[in-house]
Amino acid sequence: MPTPTDRVRSAYRRIAEADRPEVWIHLRPEQELAVEAKALEDRIASGADLPLAGTLVAVKDNIDVAGLPTTAACREFASTPDTTATAVRRLVDAGALVLGKTNLDQFATGLVGTRSPYGAVRNALDPERISGGSSAGSAVAVALGIADIGIGTDTAGSGRVPAALNGIVGLKPTVGLVPATGVVPAARPYDCVTVFAQDLATGREALAEMIGPDAGDAFSRDWPADVRLGTRSPARVAVPTAAGLEPLSEAERAAFHTAADTLRAAGVRTLEVDVAPLLAAARLLYDGALVAERYAAVGEFLEGGPESADPTVSGIIVPAAKIPAHELAADQHRLAEYRAEARGLLSGFDALLLPTTVGHPTLERVAADPVGENSRLGTYTNFVNLLDMAAVAVPAGEADGHAFGVSLVTGAFEDQVALDLAAVLTGEDPGEAVSEQGIELAVFGAHLRGQPLNHQLTDRGARFVEETETSAEYRMVALPTTPPKPGVLRVREGGGALRCEVWRISRAALGTFLVHLPAPMMLGSVTLADGRRVVGFGCEASAAEDAEDITGHGGWLAYLESSKD
Amino acid sequence: MPTPTDRVRSAYRRIAEADRPEVWIHLRPEQELAVEAKALEDRIASGADLPLAGTLVAVKDNIDVAGLPTTAACREFASTPDTTATAVRRLVDAGALVLGKTNLDQFATGLVGTRSPYGAVRNALDPERISGGSSAGSAVAVALGIADIGIGTDTAGSGRVPAALNGIVGLKPTVGLVPATGVVPAARPYDCVTVFAQDLATGREALAEMIGPDAGDAFSRDWPADVRLGTRSPARVAVPTAAGLEPLSEAERAAFHTAADTLRAAGVRTLEVDVAPLLAAARLLYDGALVAERYAAVGEFLEGGPESADPTVSGIIVPAAKIPAHELAADQHRLAEYRAEARGLLSGFDALLLPTTVGHPTLERVAADPVGENSRLGTYTNFVNLLDMAAVAVPAGEADGHAFGVSLVTGAFEDQVALDLAAVLTGEDPGEAVSEQGIELAVFGAHLRGQPLNHQLTDRGARFVEETETSAEYRMVALPTTPPKPGVLRVREGGGALRCEVWRISRAALGTFLVHLPAPMMLGSVTLADGRRVVGFGCEASAAEDAEDITGHGGWLAYLESSKD
Repeated sequence: MPTPTDRVRSAYRRIAEADRPEVWIHLRPEQELAVEAKALEDRIASGADLPLAGTLVAVKDNIDVAGLPTTAACREFASTPDTTATAVRRLVDAGALVLGKTNLDQFATGLVGTRSPYGAVRNALDPERISGGSSAGSAVAVALGIADIGIGTDTAGSGRVPAALNGIVGLKPTVGLVPATGVVPAARPYDCVTVFAQDLATGREALAEMIGPDAGDAFSRDWPADVRLGTRSPARVAVPTAAGLEPLSEAERAAFHTAADTLRAAGVRTLEVDVAPLLAAARLLYDGALVAERYAAVGEFLEGGPESADPTVSGIIVPAAKIPAHELAADQHRLAEYRAEARGLLSGFDALLLPTTVGHPTLERVAADPVGENSRLGTYTNFVNLLDMAAVAVPAGEADGHAFGVSLVTGAFEDQVALDLAAVLTGEDPGEAVSEQGIELAVFGAHLRGQPLNHQLTDRGARFVEETETSAEYRMVALPTTPPKPGVLRVREGGGALRCEVWRISRAALGTFLVHLPAPMMLGSVTLADGRRVVGFGCEASAAEDAEDITGHGGWLAYLESSKD
Repeated sequence: MPTPTDRVRSAYRRIAEADRPEVWIHLRPEQELAVEAKALEDRIASGADLPLAGTLVAVKDNIDVAGLPTTAACREFASTPDTTATAVRRLVDAGALVLGKTNLDQFATGLVGTRSPYGAVRNALDPERISGGSSAGSAVAVALGIADIGIGTDTAGSGRVPAALNGIVGLKPTVGLVPATGVVPAARPYDCVTVFAQDLATGREALAEMIGPDAGDAFSRDWPADVRLGTRSPARVAVPTAAGLEPLSEAERAAFHTAADTLRAAGVRTLEVDVAPLLAAARLLYDGALVAERYAAVGEFLEGGPESADPTVSGIIVPAAKIPAHELAADQHRLAEYRAEARGLLSGFDALLLPTTVGHPTLERVAADPVGENSRLGTYTNFVNLLDMAAVAVPAGEADGHAFGVSLVTGAFEDQVALDLAAVLTGEDPGEAVSEQGIELAVFGAHLRGQPLNHQLTDRGARFVEETETSAEYRMVALPTTPPKPGVLRVREGGGALRCEVWRISRAALGTFLVHLPAPMMLGSVTLADGRRVVGFGCEASAAEDAEDITGHGGWLAYLESSKD
């Protein structure tokens, strides 16, 4: 297996070979990464658990990386942050290395990849054609085999359209699942951070690290308790009627039907639905008052007339100053209605299969009609965030001589369902669920469900796994803390099995949890009745000395129950 | 016990005695209700289950009742709907009788009860003072002992302020829990339908009937799976610091502390929190761009300059035409941030105890300063819907010679927690949980969790109760339906116990469920293993004749599993 150092060397070799300077707005010097790779190797040698060690990441330049300027593809907008965006920091914490910051449609306003003073990004497979955008450079860096992971953002399709056009996968999670802290907003309530990769497994591993609420992003959200962790069997997938596929060329339609056939061949049941209400909702994004969100983000800045403003981007955002608020309110109400309609439409389905985009224009054609060509590309993507859905874009052969892609679209928080079905199309093993990743943590007392500190787990996005018990080698004492807590200690003799709950929590969240843990509580390894070892609560032995031994109750809840009498 | 006829007679006697004509915009003739009461008695005699039989309801005149004009307190706005608002229809379906339509601050814009061309509504306890509003007439009708239930709406506090000022209870559920179908919008995303009553039990019974999603209201919402059904023991309640109680008079502060003492005496732990961020969010409602929501609702109508428009109401709504959309977007983002802050603030608490309102002005004083006095009244209520919270307002003695009230405020969907704690203050038995009410329904096949028709239950707000089995007197057959379904039949011999799931569903939802049930499926009484009888699925005997007997599998899932092989 190549070391992080090998991987860095090979990435910079690919950068040189590929000769696509427009991919990067800021490429870090190889030497810096070589040093970081070496440091990673040292940490691994001393036993660090770094699941993404040496994974090379290209970060869209509307996402902060400490020490590098964030331009959003506009020189005058640039400033250099001290803090890395939460989503990227979680990757780096897991051992990823940031290659640099990538080119984009300015202020993430576009699906073409050409609206940038840093140059139009050429398609990885066909340099005469557009890369798609707005996460243009990140997608091309992955498609060219430079980066393992491309981090993008997606409001209208920016994390999916470039995936389709460059023949890679694009994971667009439910809005709020990955925090947008440290991301330049495009339309805040509908923005999300996305992942490009060559295959779903690589994308999924990165996504698993990025998920989880963050105090810095008011729009970040917890998984609800009733989220589905995978597809039911046999899965049911909605596909558009013939009318819904009208925007496609004949060859694209054929490629789409081939993808649907692949699902059916795998035992998935498909049924046609009328997607017209979804496509109508899509048109609200630019044709209605919602574009005022973009003005709220960067309108005042653009009013100043910065020299490197892209004229198409300015032409969209600046006039939005004049939209009245009551029209925005009315469009938001319409959106709520479309959302309810979409829920009804897809009720009983696991997902909706759609083309990711329509056509694949050349750079020249987009230059001639920048707005018209852009709109067409968003036909099947614009509505997804507006209607609070998740999507996974995967390659699906080619049509008319260009890469073609399809997307699996699900309701909010059913990201894993989309990933499972996408894996049927790519032929990959669906692997471990994104939402199943993370660390298992055994809790014994105040953190149990219904107990006073349980919220410390749920607030950090932890999810209940099971109720179980430890091996028969533990003692439990009642500590005189506020709120009352049990102390758990492994003993050589006289121990018993203790009831506990296992929760799953992300590495990052476990870290912050540990930071706030008051003495005498500790976290360590706990052996469960079935021999598994998980992270779990213990307590300092000294604190347990004078405390009442309650091992005989077999668990905290039984003890609480008995002490009520 | 008084019959519905007795109750109607006594209500009209109270109406005459009370002599408060301004309470009503449209009072129905006694004779109409007498006829309806008699019809109810006939239905009860023939065995109908009408939990609210003879409950007298006063409906705020921004809520549709078929055949009565809806004015929203503006003559020119009036039209007469054919359909009764879902919330009221559910009450009527349960046996309630509608007395008429009540006066309000025009377009529900106000907390005073004086902004109406139908006259200022005088307080039930002190006619020199305001009733509070905007649900003025509904509150006063309850406080005067005319109606059992007053139906109001609440955006900024309209379902709570009048409760406090008239010494009754006001239940303001989580936005979306009671559908707003057939309600004139004030600020759609923040509007909800509320209940006034003399005691919590009466209010709770009405609320239980009204809850549940409705296709007509895109803002209606399901209970999430992880909703808390009651308070943890011992409960923890946040109370404002001294600074947070500054707006109160000394006597009001004393009354507030007495309420907190009552909670503590009942074993509730209280802890002070800084409520400044909540009060700041409150100010966004009228001082920011959110007032554009009101323009979106009725602004165009008011631009026409209707003669009976209230000048204060027009003065608030009409100028909102000019607010730019990007300011609304920015205020909504601020709101999302306040929402996250509030979640953090109240994390670990069951509820927040707050004064319901501040002071109690005379009619004269409000006439002199209509906007200033109104704003003060909303100090502790305005933020609740903006921050997606539920609240229950209860009387808490008096102060400065007027009724004083406090509210228990919780997170979204924790309505029952607020009701439980409110019952501590009123000294009532907390009773059955709102969310636990409804009918138990046993399902056997395609409606089980994870099965293809399960959504028909969840879409109607049904909630899973338990997995259990029937008594040993049933047969199960495999029906050749699409999707495949089991048929369940009670038999005299040769039967067995069958696995099933019990779900809880509102009476109203069960009704619509039954309406859409295709043959040969039927609903009837099913006996469970423990002898309980619940509503459950059966099938027509004829359909079962040629079908495969699968009783031996003991249940549908086991059969499905076996037929995979």
